[in-house]
Amino acid sequence: MAGWGWARTVRGLLLDVSGVLYDGGADGGVPIAGSAEALRRIKASGLKLHLCTNETQETRENFVGKLRALGFDVSVAEVTAPAPAACRLLKERGLRPHLLVHNDLVPEFADVDKTNPNCVVLGDAAENFTYANLNEAFRLLIGMEKPVLISLGKGRYYKETDGLKLDVGAYMKALEYACDVQAEVVGKPSKMFFEAALAELGVPPEQAVMIGDDIENDVGGAQQCGMRALQVRTGKYRPSDENHPKVKPDAYVNNLAEAVDIILQQQRG
Amino acid sequence: MAGWGWARTVRGLLLDVSGVLYDGGADGGVPIAGSAEALRRIKASGLKLHLCTNETQETRENFVGKLRALGFDVSVAEVTAPAPAACRLLKERGLRPHLLVHNDLVPEFADVDKTNPNCVVLGDAAENFTYANLNEAFRLLIGMEKPVLISLGKGRYYKETDGLKLDVGAYMKALEYACDVQAEVVGKPSKMFFEAALAELGVPPEQAVMIGDDIENDVGGAQQCGMRALQVRTGKYRPSDENHPKVKPDAYVNNLAEAVDIILQQQRG
Repeated sequence: MAGWGWARTVRGLLLDVSGVLYDGGADGGVPIAGSAEALRRIKASGLKLHLCTNETQETRENFVGKLRALGFDVSVAEVTAPAPAACRLLKERGLRPHLLVHNDLVPEFADVDKTNPNCVVLGDAAENFTYANLNEAFRLLIGMEKPVLISLGKGRYYKETDGLKLDVGAYMKALEYACDVQAEVVGKPSKMFFEAALAELGVPPEQAVMIGDDIENDVGGAQQCGMRALQVRTGKYRPSDENHPKVKPDAYVNNLAEAVDIILQQQRG
Repeated sequence: MAGWGWARTVRGLLLDVSGVLYDGGADGGVPIAGSAEALRRIKASGLKLHLCTNETQETRENFVGKLRALGFDVSVAEVTAPAPAACRLLKERGLRPHLLVHNDLVPEFADVDKTNPNCVVLGDAAENFTYANLNEAFRLLIGMEKPVLISLGKGRYYKETDGLKLDVGAYMKALEYACDVQAEVVGKPSKMFFEAALAELGVPPEQAVMIGDDIENDVGGAQQCGMRALQVRTGKYRPSDENHPKVKPDAYVNNLAEAVDIILQQQRG
């Protein structure tokens, strides 16, 4: 395969989850064909593996439980997600959040002081993105002398089994505009977040490859950190992504299984 | 009054409504003290008067009915509002809208073909800004080869009797970001919209003054059209508006009544 020479020196893979391993949905989601087997092959090959997700609709424990039920051999220790990273940041800075997040994510913030909020934390709240809840978050922010908005990711949209859904980034932009404030993003494509995931992976960026379906948050973000990055043609991938004005993946693959085929082939070569 | 010399040559007033005449709310709203009397004094003085609103929560007929019930002597012909302007634009361009607007605004679009939509029209939908409705508008847009998003105004927020509310501009930004599209704004601060209101007023911009509570959409927009513009310290006005990085009103007034006092005084002087 021309252009894949770099894959010979790869020692670890960072994988996005939604749109790469499975497509989420109210029904629990469905695995993407070949992905569970691809995960097993990576592990069997001796390559390191870590999941790097912007998933904020549930705790990591529940998320991993769901993935296991779908046939994926993963553990909580193998997942880097925004909510635990946000909790560390909140504690370091003495921030007390008002949460506009999915109900099932709230337990991740159990140890954080939420009285008399001095910031707003925004996640993919899904059905909790009501008119009333958005007004509440807005009023808190506009009432602060210096509004602090922390967004768990900044994705535009994602794909579920019943179609595309607006992601947290769209609501982040709404609040940014209304309050004339710039959100701090915890999650992909934040450099700090990728670096935390790389530390968990235990591989330097030049020997790691990110595989995701999001041209900006997965591919662009990882490349900014010095990693190689592949875009899969599954999940939210759209043909127009291949004309992105700024981001060009190191390669496109039809799906995770194909990426793993090629990387393992290069490793043997 | 120093700095008010220009008011001697004023021949017509354009007034914003919400935050200038009254504060809206689920209860029908409450008049701002002195505003109904100020409106009568303008009319008695022989100065021309026209209302220029971004109100899109109801038809002009209902809106005017509500204002009359609150004691304001106004008629439908004295009001320029975004929905009728949007209808003209839709027909001119052969656009068939999907409406994400307040239920009470829908009758304004009765004569517009809404089958097989090829654009989205966004108004201040209030309680209709649900997660499901936003996803629906998003999916329609992202599915278009060249998405067309028409926004009835681009306000950040407004004040109702029970507090500040996110305005249509926040939701416009959410959809703009998710679909990587720029909305076309019908309403203030669009130059075309102010020009239509000035034509109704029947006064050239240099002899007209806009009075509003929105530093960007009322004051900035009117000044861009060559009008004078005053900001009232009622409605959504906040002291921080006086440090706006780009827009400086020709004067601040405590309320509409004070503006009318000073203008009429200058006219006599």
